Amino acid sequence: MERAVLVYTTWPSVVEAERAGRQIVEKRLAACVNILPGMVSHYWWQGQIERAEEVVMVIKTRASLAEQVRDAVKGLHSYEVPSIMVLPVESVDANYYAWILKETEGHEPVA
Amino acid sequence: MERAVLVYTTWPSVVEAERAGRQIVEKRLAACVNILPGMVSHYWWQGQIERAEEVVMVIKTRASLAEQVRDAVKGLHSYEVPSIMVLPVESVDANYYAWILKETEGHEPVA
Amino acid sequence: MERAVLVYTTWPSVVEAERAGRQIVEKRLAACVNILPGMVSHYWWQGQIERAEEVVMVIKTRASLAEQVRDAVKGLHSYEVPSIMVLPVESVDANYYAWILKETEGHEPVA
Repeated sequence: MERAVLVYTTWPSVVEAERAGRQIVEKRLAACVNILPGMVSHYWWQGQIERAEEVVMVIKTRASLAEQVRDAVKGLHSYEVPSIMVLPVESVDANYYAWILKETEGHEPVA
Repeated sequence: MERAVLVYTTWPSVVEAERAGRQIVEKRLAACVNILPGMVSHYWWQGQIERAEEVVMVIKTRASLAEQVRDAVKGLHSYEVPSIMVLPVESVDANYYAWILKETEGHEPVA
Repeated sequence: MERAVLVYTTWPSVVEAERAGRQIVEKRLAACVNILPGMVSHYWWQGQIERAEEVVMVIKTRASLAEQVRDAVKGLHSYEVPSIMVLPVESVDANYYAWILKETEGHEPVA
């Protein structure tokens, strides 16, 4: 059964996030993306703890498109290993959900 | 069994989000709201891709109040189709959870 | 079976969040923390509705480390009752997940 999900991703800049987010929406892989600038990360990378200024992008779509969103993010991202985490949504307002479905129509579900 | 949830919503401005968030808390439909300003959205609307400056509001409450929170958001929101997505929480610190329950007491659960 | 989770926490300042986040990463209790400044909260506290400027910190780790992350947050936090909510992740990019596991190795799972 189809349902909504949030795909939580992080990006090095607002410019890269907006460019990628717009393309993901254009391809109707998502109905909407929400970009939160000014995020600060601390993380391990090649044996060191790094601090970086990044951006969060939450991608709102159907569960059946999550893999295609993941592939699109990887293709549009400048990182070697981008953060792509799919969060389950247990319920969504019926009108908003209908809108998500309408705006993400036309994809063959990945088998 | 009762449990905690996060209700992810988006708003056109901090002013509208704070006004609505405060009323939702006042009505004890939620123990707390977290508002994140400066969000940028890209989304389909009536055949066009729009870009908007918005605000995220995360509403922390009990699962049994999610529908009443949804109705309150719809009543307080200036959009025709507001984004209201309920995220499951798999575990929450016991003291914090007790606080959520205490501050959201007094509602007849929706049948 | 091991899996990834997001731990959603809130803090009184970027300084406190960054200091705590860095220690949590240093102890390999998480591979990464994402800190979002400029958040505004409305919440009940001792019979009043308070408004506070806060910070969100999303902690990315393994499910089996969620309790140790909770204990670390409580030990590093200046609040009496910090907000610590574990969100399930239904899927994560395989490379990113491998990175999370690699950077959070070396802990005896809590029985």
